[in-house]
Amino acid sequence: MAGLFISFEGIDGSGKSTQAKMLAEALRDDGRKVVLTREPGGSPGAEEIRALVLEGDPDRWSAQTELLLFTAARRDHLERLIDPALSDGKTVITDRFADSTRIYQGTRSGDLRDMVDQLHDLVIGREPDLTFLIDMDPDLGLSRAKGRGGTEERFEDFGADLQHKMRAGFLELAQKHPDRFRVIDGTREIDVVAADVLSVARAALVSATSDR
Amino acid sequence: MAGLFISFEGIDGSGKSTQAKMLAEALRDDGRKVVLTREPGGSPGAEEIRALVLEGDPDRWSAQTELLLFTAARRDHLERLIDPALSDGKTVITDRFADSTRIYQGTRSGDLRDMVDQLHDLVIGREPDLTFLIDMDPDLGLSRAKGRGGTEERFEDFGADLQHKMRAGFLELAQKHPDRFRVIDGTREIDVVAADVLSVARAALVSATSDR
Repeated sequence: MAGLFISFEGIDGSGKSTQAKMLAEALRDDGRKVVLTREPGGSPGAEEIRALVLEGDPDRWSAQTELLLFTAARRDHLERLIDPALSDGKTVITDRFADSTRIYQGTRSGDLRDMVDQLHDLVIGREPDLTFLIDMDPDLGLSRAKGRGGTEERFEDFGADLQHKMRAGFLELAQKHPDRFRVIDGTREIDVVAADVLSVARAALVSATSDR
Repeated sequence: MAGLFISFEGIDGSGKSTQAKMLAEALRDDGRKVVLTREPGGSPGAEEIRALVLEGDPDRWSAQTELLLFTAARRDHLERLIDPALSDGKTVITDRFADSTRIYQGTRSGDLRDMVDQLHDLVIGREPDLTFLIDMDPDLGLSRAKGRGGTEERFEDFGADLQHKMRAGFLELAQKHPDRFRVIDGTREIDVVAADVLSVARAALVSATSDR
């Protein structure tokens, strides 16, 4: 029986990486086999592509070339890590997947959104079974990220306006795909958010087991 | 006035790289500004992607991921080198372009040919104005490559059968796009082939100048 594919999405500073880790630990405590991964990267080849994109001058790749490189990384991640783990019946939890590309690449270059979708349909063609959107006001996310002594990659470069647009973009995606999205209020205490996430994930795992 | 975009295609050992260089020199002697380049690679970013694909274990990338990486390299090459040079009115000569991807990736994994075409339409969307197919029996090409003390990249890995299929694939492309393809018999003396190529290129350059 194939395992469940779960993604965490949200703007930087939303706490999604922490929540992904906490869910992985909790499900392991439940006795499940869990693979915790992240994008961009996640497999050795994809990590090399990630380094190629993120290291060096941020302007050395055009938005389109960057999109192609990230899509190549995702294809490798999917083939080499995600799909084999799911086939083994493991639960795969990824910190970011294709929704991040839709929002980050699509929001930064408005005219790129169609290319993002077409490229996804052409070479990726699969979505998570369950996506947690850890939702938070970007102003709060930024101050939290600063509070923990470091901001996430390129976080501050985006600016508050763009972060607000991205939050709106994620919420719009969630509305469009209610079948797989669960919007989680990320402004609450970490443990409260984690309990919320865990109960949704457990229910989905039980339902997947009885469905398949 | 935009410059002319010329590509050289053919199986390994056909002598296309030599012919590309000789044409560049001859057109420079004519007083033209010429940029000679090659794929995969051709711009600093594309060369980095080339190294990522071609170095290391040849099986570490799937055919699909390799195709995405080569397409990212082509996009960079086009944006950073080819398009700006053409806009400056220079003649751009490239040793391989998208036809090589159609034949190499498309022939090695039959089911990939559709993806190659769709990806090209989506993110590249342009063809050379003139393509020289340096045609040769693969058995002759192989012995020539060996004769000059080294075979080209991965040449021998493909095997004679696959080289014959690739030759047929290139000829089929040429038949399908007679507007831009010129099939050149590459079995003749190098200087004879070069004279043939030069006269076609000169005619195309004159015609382009009067058309545009």
